[in-house]
Amino acid sequence: MTSRSEITVRYAETDQMGVVYHGNYFPWFEIGRTTLLKDMGYSYKELEDENILLPVTEVTCQYKESAKYDDVVEIRTKVKEMKGVRITFSYELYRKADQQLLASGTTTHAFVNRAFKPINIKKQFPAFYQKLI
Amino acid sequence: MTSRSEITVRYAETDQMGVVYHGNYFPWFEIGRTTLLKDMGYSYKELEDENILLPVTEVTCQYKESAKYDDVVEIRTKVKEMKGVRITFSYELYRKADQQLLASGTTTHAFVNRAFKPINIKKQFPAFYQKLI
Amino acid sequence: MTSRSEITVRYAETDQMGVVYHGNYFPWFEIGRTTLLKDMGYSYKELEDENILLPVTEVTCQYKESAKYDDVVEIRTKVKEMKGVRITFSYELYRKADQQLLASGTTTHAFVNRAFKPINIKKQFPAFYQKLI
Amino acid sequence: MTSRSEITVRYAETDQMGVVYHGNYFPWFEIGRTTLLKDMGYSYKELEDENILLPVTEVTCQYKESAKYDDVVEIRTKVKEMKGVRITFSYELYRKADQQLLASGTTTHAFVNRAFKPINIKKQFPAFYQKLI
Repeated sequence: MTSRSEITVRYAETDQMGVVYHGNYFPWFEIGRTTLLKDMGYSYKELEDENILLPVTEVTCQYKESAKYDDVVEIRTKVKEMKGVRITFSYELYRKADQQLLASGTTTHAFVNRAFKPINIKKQFPAFYQKLI
Repeated sequence: MTSRSEITVRYAETDQMGVVYHGNYFPWFEIGRTTLLKDMGYSYKELEDENILLPVTEVTCQYKESAKYDDVVEIRTKVKEMKGVRITFSYELYRKADQQLLASGTTTHAFVNRAFKPINIKKQFPAFYQKLI
Repeated sequence: MTSRSEITVRYAETDQMGVVYHGNYFPWFEIGRTTLLKDMGYSYKELEDENILLPVTEVTCQYKESAKYDDVVEIRTKVKEMKGVRITFSYELYRKADQQLLASGTTTHAFVNRAFKPINIKKQFPAFYQKLI
Repeated sequence: MTSRSEITVRYAETDQMGVVYHGNYFPWFEIGRTTLLKDMGYSYKELEDENILLPVTEVTCQYKESAKYDDVVEIRTKVKEMKGVRITFSYELYRKADQQLLASGTTTHAFVNRAFKPINIKKQFPAFYQKLI
């Protein structure tokens, strides 16, 4: 399952190089995985309300072409790997106008409760687990 | 009492106009008032641990000259007004190299607890109140 | 003329108080005025390409209720005042779900060229000026 | 050569999980490599003025422990690899109070001019190249 979302680049996201600051791609990845979860029937907000948090344990990002102010960027997100207490999402960012690949990356997350203790999703939330694998 | 702090402009704080994005002055004001509180013997972190929060209810900022990447900026902060459950801090930002005034502004805060209920600082924390007036 | 735009609050925009960091409302205001300009037939990106920049000279914001993660926020923007080389936009932010007013504010901008020299919009760009007044 | 710099975590850098948002580590890495360049006798600001830009082509970050508001974080930076038109910096972030490793990561950069054309640093700037290898 690949989820699609879209953002328009904000002026605030650019830097003096005239392109989007590299760190500002991570909030876009966040929108991507939030949308993917919604497409699966889960709201990250509600997961947190039910005491399931997904702190980030690792990220990677390769930048191919610069995103620029006012560009419409398409975010394609999927689950790359799910094992034990960790999940990895992968992302591809495309400039909508010409379908140019701008960047690709991954984020890995632990499933923990609000006390940051690991949660065994497979055992405790089997329905959610089935969606993710 | 005027408190002084200093920051060096980060690349991430600039935008494609080649200067600091206007919204990025507010984290600097935050550093200013945090330093002022520390100079008074209070840590904002500890205030939060003791269930005293200072959410922002109003801000103003006038921009005179642009702050630029790698500029060292001096932040001068003082309490402008303290009344009832609200406090207003005022800030002046100077470019350190030539003491040029870059911007001035204010932030107003409510004293509340974690449930966002107002706290009467004068009655409940008289020692802290005496420092602030 | 009042323009309407919408954003969904990003996790990255929250802080440890559990609500949106106050400085993060300014990129939303930016989306509001960008949309207003688009509704008038102008793209801020194209204005910059034609050497018309709108640096911010002053901002104000009053915060009434906290915006929270995943809230859909409606941004209503209009021109408040246009005089000489300055323009002031006013903004109202509403939580879409219940039409609760979250914040209101203003941003004032100078019309300048890339060398930051003032531009007389009325004389040099009369068609644009007519839209703004 | 390992360079050391220090930052204090800003409230604005936290999110509602009560820790620093993962994307906000990249401006810290930026401070790390800026300091490393300064320790080598180069200012990134001056490099840009001389038409040498270092856009990011790849990043990685592993998060071990959460950085929290008001933590003092030590950034240790070195050149990991320099080949052809690319340079990779590596970073380790430590909580100063107890020397706990919080995160480690890398950023890879291309050397380009303002037109984003690759620069052969070894040939065109041999003195700078010698510092980097």
